[in-house]
Amino acid sequence: MSTIKAYGADTKDSDLKSMTIERRETKKNDVKIKITYCGVCHSDIHTVQNDWGNSKYPVVPGHEIIGRVEEVGSDVKNFKEGDLVGVGCMVDSCQDCSACNDDLEQFCEEGMVGTYNGKDKHLGGHTYGGYSEMIVVDEKFVLSIPDNLDEKAVAPLLCAGITTYSPLNHWKVKKGDKVGVIGLGGLGHMGIKFAHALGAKVVMITTSPGKEKDAKRLGADEVLISKNDEDMKKHANSFDFLLNTVPVKHDINPYLQLLKRDSTMVMVGAIEPLEPMHGGSLVMGRKRVAGSLIGGIKETQEMLDFCGKHNITSDIEVIDIDTINTAYDRVKNSDVKYRFVIDMESLKN
Amino acid sequence: MSTIKAYGADTKDSDLKSMTIERRETKKNDVKIKITYCGVCHSDIHTVQNDWGNSKYPVVPGHEIIGRVEEVGSDVKNFKEGDLVGVGCMVDSCQDCSACNDDLEQFCEEGMVGTYNGKDKHLGGHTYGGYSEMIVVDEKFVLSIPDNLDEKAVAPLLCAGITTYSPLNHWKVKKGDKVGVIGLGGLGHMGIKFAHALGAKVVMITTSPGKEKDAKRLGADEVLISKNDEDMKKHANSFDFLLNTVPVKHDINPYLQLLKRDSTMVMVGAIEPLEPMHGGSLVMGRKRVAGSLIGGIKETQEMLDFCGKHNITSDIEVIDIDTINTAYDRVKNSDVKYRFVIDMESLKN
Repeated sequence: MSTIKAYGADTKDSDLKSMTIERRETKKNDVKIKITYCGVCHSDIHTVQNDWGNSKYPVVPGHEIIGRVEEVGSDVKNFKEGDLVGVGCMVDSCQDCSACNDDLEQFCEEGMVGTYNGKDKHLGGHTYGGYSEMIVVDEKFVLSIPDNLDEKAVAPLLCAGITTYSPLNHWKVKKGDKVGVIGLGGLGHMGIKFAHALGAKVVMITTSPGKEKDAKRLGADEVLISKNDEDMKKHANSFDFLLNTVPVKHDINPYLQLLKRDSTMVMVGAIEPLEPMHGGSLVMGRKRVAGSLIGGIKETQEMLDFCGKHNITSDIEVIDIDTINTAYDRVKNSDVKYRFVIDMESLKN
Repeated sequence: MSTIKAYGADTKDSDLKSMTIERRETKKNDVKIKITYCGVCHSDIHTVQNDWGNSKYPVVPGHEIIGRVEEVGSDVKNFKEGDLVGVGCMVDSCQDCSACNDDLEQFCEEGMVGTYNGKDKHLGGHTYGGYSEMIVVDEKFVLSIPDNLDEKAVAPLLCAGITTYSPLNHWKVKKGDKVGVIGLGGLGHMGIKFAHALGAKVVMITTSPGKEKDAKRLGADEVLISKNDEDMKKHANSFDFLLNTVPVKHDINPYLQLLKRDSTMVMVGAIEPLEPMHGGSLVMGRKRVAGSLIGGIKETQEMLDFCGKHNITSDIEVIDIDTINTAYDRVKNSDVKYRFVIDMESLKN
């Protein structure tokens, strides 16, 4: 075991502060990673605040981790010292159930082990995330980072990236499809980039007229203001796919009206009760609403390789760790374009 | 035009009573049908009561129509005098849009013409349904009835039958699948019969323990009482498909827990706002909820042929037309096993 520096919260009401945590020694299948950058995800805040009622303290958040390999275990095959690597939302799973066998570890029937707030199989207690100097992870859950990308802007791909790439990939969005991305935040801005790179005609759907310019810069062909009933009617029954990234309770009925017959809206943001859905919104046109959760490790690597090929990264604002509490307030106010990334070098100070 | 006897309601609060209506002459593509039996669908009651806010009076309900061909137009190819035929929920559509070209006239982009309460293209005004002596329908919307089936018990197949067959067919339910049918009424009892005939392991899911015996008689392998949390947990994440026939507002979250990863629940009953759905119910396991509406004419004929082959009809109670108001009260109280069918001979009295 080694004792390292980290940043975390002791209770649901406390600010994040400097603390020390333990990491296991590098076992034979493990990769020891010196963390260089870590993205700030809305889930970090939900967990710190215990919004989902399952938080274990102290919480050390962070599951958009970039770093350099410092040491590898004797059986590690795919990584060597000095490699640029990433760790996302999971650090382990049973690797033996039907989901794991289908490369969908996020749906592991035993429960995947979250990068933080998960059950630590090695040291007991719970796992600690990437707001820390170093992490030790089974190589099966370590990703390779394409070397043409700016490493700090890659960090958010490990959660925001795969969360939006996976449904576009799974539902086979293709060239020429009309795709709507609902909500322009950390997830939405990645959804636009991916849908655009896949060759879709991308419509950014938002309540805020002020977001038009930025949406187009990110790759949207058109912006649809969902509060404008007239424009919503013009787009009725015309979308091949909708990616709904709105992170809070909302009314999905107006969006279902936008779908073509037999088409799907996938929810990736709101993990809470929605406004009442009208049965008729689905019945008329045999429409579907589905959910999607991050992606498996294999698909996450495919997403990173896709990003390397298409030169896709996140739009970020780099911060020092000691400004994290202010950053959380800004995330809660949607005041970030589009993702904070912590320069972990700042943890040394 | 001919003036014929019918039964209908003059206002949303009035009882149904004897009245006369006009039918068009038999045009070149038309089939004139002497109605022998007509099923009683919950939609009839909703329309009489103007529950959906779009009723036109007088309402002559009835879209589960069985009868004998009395006359055919000069260009009619598929029917001749004396044939046993059926008419379901539609009597026309544009026949030129993408939905009609895909044999999904129920989703006609111009709007399908309902058998009642639709826009009558021929006589102006609105269409009148099957609670009447006779109907004239374009042959494209007339179905052939297999001659081995009891014609009066076939009537409900034209709506309750196709409404449950279509999603089982479209979502490719097959031998060995574990299928849950939620709700045991007019739709649910047909859902059990079809799922059983398709070779699925059928679980009837109901709030009422008293329905077990009947569910098994109809073809269910097992009955799951949805109020029993322990039993619901045992069946969690185990269903390949769920057919939700509950006709009123309810909480779908407990049912979504029953679905396997990547599986679908299809709503066919509740055309109204549901209780709030939790985003997590979809996100965990990449689950889907969809809607389905009757079926196209081609699929309706396939369903009837499937019924002929597997000897499937509806469980019915035959009534005279002058007891229709009492029958409506009994439908509203779920006091029918499982569908009323009006013997239209009784209209003569």
